[in-house]
Amino acid sequence: MAREIEYPLIALNFKVYLEAVGEKAVKLAKIAEEVSKEYGVCVMVAPPQIDLARVVQEVEIPIFAQHVDPYKPGSHTGSVIAEDVKAAGALGSIVNHSEHRLRLADIGMVLERLRKNGLMSLLCTDTVETTKAGAALGPDILAIEPPELIGTGIPVSKAKPEVVTGAVEAVKKINPAVHVLCGAGISAGDDVAKAIELGTEGVLLASAYVKAKDPKAVLSEMAEAALKSWEKRGD
Amino acid sequence: MAREIEYPLIALNFKVYLEAVGEKAVKLAKIAEEVSKEYGVCVMVAPPQIDLARVVQEVEIPIFAQHVDPYKPGSHTGSVIAEDVKAAGALGSIVNHSEHRLRLADIGMVLERLRKNGLMSLLCTDTVETTKAGAALGPDILAIEPPELIGTGIPVSKAKPEVVTGAVEAVKKINPAVHVLCGAGISAGDDVAKAIELGTEGVLLASAYVKAKDPKAVLSEMAEAALKSWEKRGD
Amino acid sequence: MAREIEYPLIALNFKVYLEAVGEKAVKLAKIAEEVSKEYGVCVMVAPPQIDLARVVQEVEIPIFAQHVDPYKPGSHTGSVIAEDVKAAGALGSIVNHSEHRLRLADIGMVLERLRKNGLMSLLCTDTVETTKAGAALGPDILAIEPPELIGTGIPVSKAKPEVVTGAVEAVKKINPAVHVLCGAGISAGDDVAKAIELGTEGVLLASAYVKAKDPKAVLSEMAEAALKSWEKRGD
Amino acid sequence: MAREIEYPLIALNFKVYLEAVGEKAVKLAKIAEEVSKEYGVCVMVAPPQIDLARVVQEVEIPIFAQHVDPYKPGSHTGSVIAEDVKAAGALGSIVNHSEHRLRLADIGMVLERLRKNGLMSLLCTDTVETTKAGAALGPDILAIEPPELIGTGIPVSKAKPEVVTGAVEAVKKINPAVHVLCGAGISAGDDVAKAIELGTEGVLLASAYVKAKDPKAVLSEMAEAALKSWEKRGD
Repeated sequence: MAREIEYPLIALNFKVYLEAVGEKAVKLAKIAEEVSKEYGVCVMVAPPQIDLARVVQEVEIPIFAQHVDPYKPGSHTGSVIAEDVKAAGALGSIVNHSEHRLRLADIGMVLERLRKNGLMSLLCTDTVETTKAGAALGPDILAIEPPELIGTGIPVSKAKPEVVTGAVEAVKKINPAVHVLCGAGISAGDDVAKAIELGTEGVLLASAYVKAKDPKAVLSEMAEAALKSWEKRGD
Repeated sequence: MAREIEYPLIALNFKVYLEAVGEKAVKLAKIAEEVSKEYGVCVMVAPPQIDLARVVQEVEIPIFAQHVDPYKPGSHTGSVIAEDVKAAGALGSIVNHSEHRLRLADIGMVLERLRKNGLMSLLCTDTVETTKAGAALGPDILAIEPPELIGTGIPVSKAKPEVVTGAVEAVKKINPAVHVLCGAGISAGDDVAKAIELGTEGVLLASAYVKAKDPKAVLSEMAEAALKSWEKRGD
Repeated sequence: MAREIEYPLIALNFKVYLEAVGEKAVKLAKIAEEVSKEYGVCVMVAPPQIDLARVVQEVEIPIFAQHVDPYKPGSHTGSVIAEDVKAAGALGSIVNHSEHRLRLADIGMVLERLRKNGLMSLLCTDTVETTKAGAALGPDILAIEPPELIGTGIPVSKAKPEVVTGAVEAVKKINPAVHVLCGAGISAGDDVAKAIELGTEGVLLASAYVKAKDPKAVLSEMAEAALKSWEKRGD
Repeated sequence: MAREIEYPLIALNFKVYLEAVGEKAVKLAKIAEEVSKEYGVCVMVAPPQIDLARVVQEVEIPIFAQHVDPYKPGSHTGSVIAEDVKAAGALGSIVNHSEHRLRLADIGMVLERLRKNGLMSLLCTDTVETTKAGAALGPDILAIEPPELIGTGIPVSKAKPEVVTGAVEAVKKINPAVHVLCGAGISAGDDVAKAIELGTEGVLLASAYVKAKDPKAVLSEMAEAALKSWEKRGD
């Protein structure tokens, strides 16, 4: 597993939940590492920006920043630039999450800044239309997340399967090199299985893992479901 | 000419230059109407938001808003919604101008709001990459404008012809129904001719018209050049 | 009454409710004018930005813009500048409404732009703390509106009287020249009376008027209550 | 010295200059620590957000974040919250820097979040007017920085002494508990001395230290000047 992204991929966004701040970010990342090794499934984690460097130092799975600003190094107080994410040892960054939307021109700039620093990009989009636009921009990974389902526990893969398949088809047509995940409401192994059946290569989730009573159990169930569903698809 | 958009198109953005505020917006729009009739070339004007309705009442050429917010009617103090732009009698709106950049998700929403209200969209982009994304979103018209040239008098059609042709090709490939203009630094007939030679269907400009000593002379020269260049191309 | 602001003041924000777009903005403003004349109470209206100029032309009460951008005339596509609000004949502008929050530095700039153009300012704030800051900036009028009550029908004057009196006291201490209104949830004559009893010089409201089945009846009740309460206070 | 803020204070903002990213942030912070010990002058540093935690671990002077978002812990991808800045061991945060301006309501919220987490605040303002507003909000420290001088090498303390003294007086009047610094263009010992003569309790600077050929020499000169000027004032 180590640091590379492989598919199926389970991507865990820690946001800035109290359960994921400071030492707790390290702890949650270590659980993800354990599950990843146990099941042989790639698990990526995106800890809070402040905890990025220390999580990288303590776990051996792919670590992403949650956001990068569209700036070159310079006079940008309070910003996070690709150069610093790279220096911290992260593998890439989430871009344009529904809780941190970027202007189109800035997404173009962020993707360029990430590429120039040898970092991967996971671009979030909200509709089939913006997924087309996102695919055209050429990120490494794209996650379609209808924002109205985020944090609800109603899985996009079940509530809006047509959005997921629509996104998968749109990406295949416009830029087949882009890997597609789906997110929003993913909370159990079943949701992950369904997401992969619909043609995605994995899922992006947050609260179902971070706020779980037993994060290890939740993630293990998802890892198992991802593997089974992936084998069935035979990619 | 009347209210419809035809090509080649000369699109005039009045911004909020002092030369284009209040009664002066009407005056500048009337000059544009005269030139449009004289040369049989379509000229669209986008007056300041506050002056939109009165310009529509006084001239018979296509009028666009300069910006529309990504909202349905409701609790959005100080915003401009598509329903109101429609009620004012405008034909459409500029979207995502470099001086009013929108988030990708909001561009998706604005285009949807415009369509639902029977309004046209003129989407601005800044690079070949974001032009691809923009084309995928399906606006009626797309204007590529490298922001570093806006207001400089250095015409994009001469300084960065590869950006213009790159945009034209990208749009043809991704969404050939979209009409392509170019903008930034367009200040003379020559720049317009060159823009059309490069494959665009017209230009978007602002200061060269609004701040001209003799706006009628400037626009007449552009209209003439546009026609000649268009005929040569034989579209 | 005419165009000047007098106290007690009932300020009506039309937002961009469908009930207040285009011709309907004029109609709602005319009802406000009628009630204002009938009761001899000052009623100010802030129509959608697009309808500002035409409302000014058709009614003889104070008209405010809903928002002004922190710019001098120039290259600012899709913005609304003080010069154009002035040219439209408006008396002033709402600033920093909870649905259009501004950065502190930009509030400073907007107030300066309004002053330089001979326009009044009605600055919105959300807490006693930001009211202190707002008073220090010296707007003509300040409206305290706890955002969590906006549009709820739960009147700030009853639900959070301590916020209203806290704001009134803070302003008196820091800048007694500033007139204080309160808003959020104001929906009946009673709420207006209570607001004035708490020391304000009037109210700012939106949906209770704009979305009323009988706007004239609602506003008349408020005007009557405002007058009675004002006389009782003996200012 | 240790972790507390003392006056006179030299506050060093590392921004995201390439000279201050990753390991280089630690190196620059260690030089600041050396000078602070040598001269007995309090030096605070604000490293890039990504490097905050590691700088705290390696140096024993006050460390601030460059920015904090106006959020409680929760669903805010890519944000920096006060809880995490606290967990990283920082002492406080810069707020509303000219390169990261906040809306007035959000400044109120950030100051509250910092207080609740036992963190200090250093609020930046740009004019005497916004300084009044800022003082009313009650930050621990306030730095007046006319943005047009930032990064120019033209010291505010010499170019606009009336802005500095105006800010000092305004703060004394509205909220005398707030400590006042000035910034923008501060690049030599002389500028620091002049700032203290004008009534401030120190300076905020960035490029003159971070981009210096010999940061230690620059900071030593400033520390010496600060001390001398402070003694002369006899506070």
